[in-house]
Amino acid sequence: MSERFVVIMAGGRGERFWPQSREATPKHLLPIVGDKPMLAQTVDRVAGIVPPANIFVITTQAQLAGCRAACTGLPAANIVAEPMGRDTAAATGLAMLLVKQRNPAAAFAMLPADHVIHDTAEYAKLLNVAFESAECADVLVTLGIKPATPETGFGYIQQAGPWKKVGGRDVMAVKRFVEKPNLETARGYLASGEYFWNAGMFVWRVPVVEAAFKAHAAELYAGLAQLEAAAKTAGGWTRALSEIYPTLKKISVDYALMEKSTNVVVVPATFDWDDVGAWPAIAKHFTPDAAGNVLRGLAMVEGGANNIVVSTDGHLTGVVGVSDLVVVHTAEATLVCPKDKAQEIKALLERLKSDPAKKKFL
Amino acid sequence: MSERFVVIMAGGRGERFWPQSREATPKHLLPIVGDKPMLAQTVDRVAGIVPPANIFVITTQAQLAGCRAACTGLPAANIVAEPMGRDTAAATGLAMLLVKQRNPAAAFAMLPADHVIHDTAEYAKLLNVAFESAECADVLVTLGIKPATPETGFGYIQQAGPWKKVGGRDVMAVKRFVEKPNLETARGYLASGEYFWNAGMFVWRVPVVEAAFKAHAAELYAGLAQLEAAAKTAGGWTRALSEIYPTLKKISVDYALMEKSTNVVVVPATFDWDDVGAWPAIAKHFTPDAAGNVLRGLAMVEGGANNIVVSTDGHLTGVVGVSDLVVVHTAEATLVCPKDKAQEIKALLERLKSDPAKKKFL
Repeated sequence: MSERFVVIMAGGRGERFWPQSREATPKHLLPIVGDKPMLAQTVDRVAGIVPPANIFVITTQAQLAGCRAACTGLPAANIVAEPMGRDTAAATGLAMLLVKQRNPAAAFAMLPADHVIHDTAEYAKLLNVAFESAECADVLVTLGIKPATPETGFGYIQQAGPWKKVGGRDVMAVKRFVEKPNLETARGYLASGEYFWNAGMFVWRVPVVEAAFKAHAAELYAGLAQLEAAAKTAGGWTRALSEIYPTLKKISVDYALMEKSTNVVVVPATFDWDDVGAWPAIAKHFTPDAAGNVLRGLAMVEGGANNIVVSTDGHLTGVVGVSDLVVVHTAEATLVCPKDKAQEIKALLERLKSDPAKKKFL
Repeated sequence: MSERFVVIMAGGRGERFWPQSREATPKHLLPIVGDKPMLAQTVDRVAGIVPPANIFVITTQAQLAGCRAACTGLPAANIVAEPMGRDTAAATGLAMLLVKQRNPAAAFAMLPADHVIHDTAEYAKLLNVAFESAECADVLVTLGIKPATPETGFGYIQQAGPWKKVGGRDVMAVKRFVEKPNLETARGYLASGEYFWNAGMFVWRVPVVEAAFKAHAAELYAGLAQLEAAAKTAGGWTRALSEIYPTLKKISVDYALMEKSTNVVVVPATFDWDDVGAWPAIAKHFTPDAAGNVLRGLAMVEGGANNIVVSTDGHLTGVVGVSDLVVVHTAEATLVCPKDKAQEIKALLERLKSDPAKKKFL
C-alpha cells in the first residue's frame, strides 16, 4: 500500500445558503447539517483513513482563516489558499503538486468539503476500496452515487460493466462521463440503471493523474510544470503560486480529464449521500415537528406546515399562516423564500453584487 | 365659547403591529405611517385647536415614559397613566375628572392616538364643528366615518336625519349606536346609507357626559365620584387613582353610555380616516414600487409583488419569489405572515404569552 493523502476542496461559495453562508463563511464553514462546520465533518470522516498530516484543504484567501479555525486538528500549513479560483482542473493540479511534494508515488483522494454523509463506516470502507483500486492499476477512480431522482444539477457517470472486485466490492469500468443533462435525458439515465451521479469524489495516484493532464490537458499540464519548477526557485512555493496559478486555464476537471480519459473506474457508493444543495434540502436531515416544520434556533410557526425556519442570535422568528417557506434570519440579513423558489436566491445576490451599498451583505 | 380640552387615549397595545409594536412601544408610539409616532401626529393635529396645556394623554404605566418622550411639547403632568386598564368607560371618566379639575364647565374631545388622517385642515374644521355642537346644546357629539366597505371590525352609528347646521356643516341626530355587526348586517348598513363607522372620537362638555354616567352607568358614576372626592384628601390624586381606579367597572364607553343615551349627535367626517388596524393596511399610505411592493428600510423583493417588507437597524431583509406577504424585521424579532392572515398574529402572541422564555418578545 502506497502512502495515502486526502485533499479536501473547500473553495465553494455556497451562495444558495445565503444569508447564513457569506463570502467569508460559506456553506462548508457552517454547521448547515450537524453540529460542526461541514468541512470539519469531512475531516472527521477521513481521519481514520489517513493521518492528519496527510490531509490537505484547498480553499480561497477569503476563507483561509475560517478553514484553519474549522480544522484545528490539521497542520496549519496543510490548509492552502488558491490565490484566485481557476476552476476544478487547476485545483486538481494544485492538489497533485501538494501531494507530489510530499510523495510523488502517493495516492490521494479529492473530496468536496460540504456534503452530508451519515454512514461514516460504509463511507470509510468505500474510500478504502477506491484507494485500493487506484493503487492496483493505472486508473482514475471515482465514487458514483446511485441516482434517486432524475436530477439535472449533477453530471453523470455511465458504467460499462464490472471492472474488478476490490476489497470485496464490485468496481465498475466507466464508459463515459457526461455533463448535466436536461430533464428528459436525466429520466433516461435513471431508467437505464447504468448511470451514477458524479459527486466530485476522485482517487488516483500522482503519476496517473499527471499522465492524464499530459494526455488531455496539455496547456494546463505545461502551466503546472511551470508552477512546480518555479516552486523550487528563490521565493519558493508561495511566490510561484501567486505568480503562475492565476495564469492556469480555467476549466473543470470533469471536462479537462474525466470526459476524455478511458482509464476511469467507478466505485458504486453504498453509503447515504446528499450534497444539500440549497435550503429546502436540509429538511430531510432534521426531525420535523408535528406540522412538518424544521425549526432551528428561536423559531415559531403558527398555522403553517413544512416550513424551514432558522433563527440565529436569540432572535425570535415567527412565521404565521404560511407553508412551504424558507425563512432564515442572521444578525445582518434575513431571507424569505418559498421552498420551490430557492434557486431564485441567486437573482437577489446578483442585485447585491451590483449595488455598492449592499455588497457587504454578500 | 367655553374652554376646550383634548384628551388623547393612548393605552392600546397595537398587537397587530408586532413585532414592531411591543408592550412598551405600541402602535401609537411608532411611526407606522408618517415620520413621527402616531401619538405625536395626533397631538400635532389638535395643536391648532387647543393650547398644549389643554391637551391630556391617558396611557398605561408601561407606556408612560414613551408617551412623554413622544409629546415633548406637552406638560409632562398632562401625560397620565391609568394604574391599570379598566376599559374605555373608566378611561372616559378619568378624562372627565382631569378636565373637570381644570374647568368644570369645559368641553373636551376624546380622540384615539393611533389613527391616520392626512387632511388635517378638514379634520380641524370638523373637530371645531363638534366642539361647537357640544357647546350649543346638551348633547354627546361623535364624529362618524362614512363606511367604504362592510367592515365587521367597527361599531356603527345610525343617523336619524339632520339635527342642525353648525359652522356651516350638517350635524345629524343619532338613532342608535350598534356594536360590531356580522358581515351580512354590515352589508345592510352600508347599503342603507344611514350608518357611520364609530371611530371612537367624541366631544362633550363635562356636565353633559357626567349626567350620562349618572343616568346610564350608576355604578361607574359612584366610583368616579369616590375617586374625585379621594383626590381632594391627603395623598391626593395619585393615591386616589391607584386605590380607586382599579375598582371601577370594566365596560366600554359605547356600551355604558353611547348605546343608552338619546342625546347623541354625529358630525359626518369629511376628512380621510384610517385606523390602520394591521400591517396590510399600511400599504395604501405609501407609494409602492413598480411591483406594488411597499419597502421600508433595507428591504428587497425579487420576483414577488404586493409585499410589505419592513426592515430596521440596517438589517437587510430579502424576500424572493413570493407575493402578498408581510415581513417585518426588528432587532429582536421577525414576523412573516401572508397579508390575508394578518389576524392570525394574535395566535402567535398568545403562545408567546404562555411561554415564560418567550414573554420578553411581547
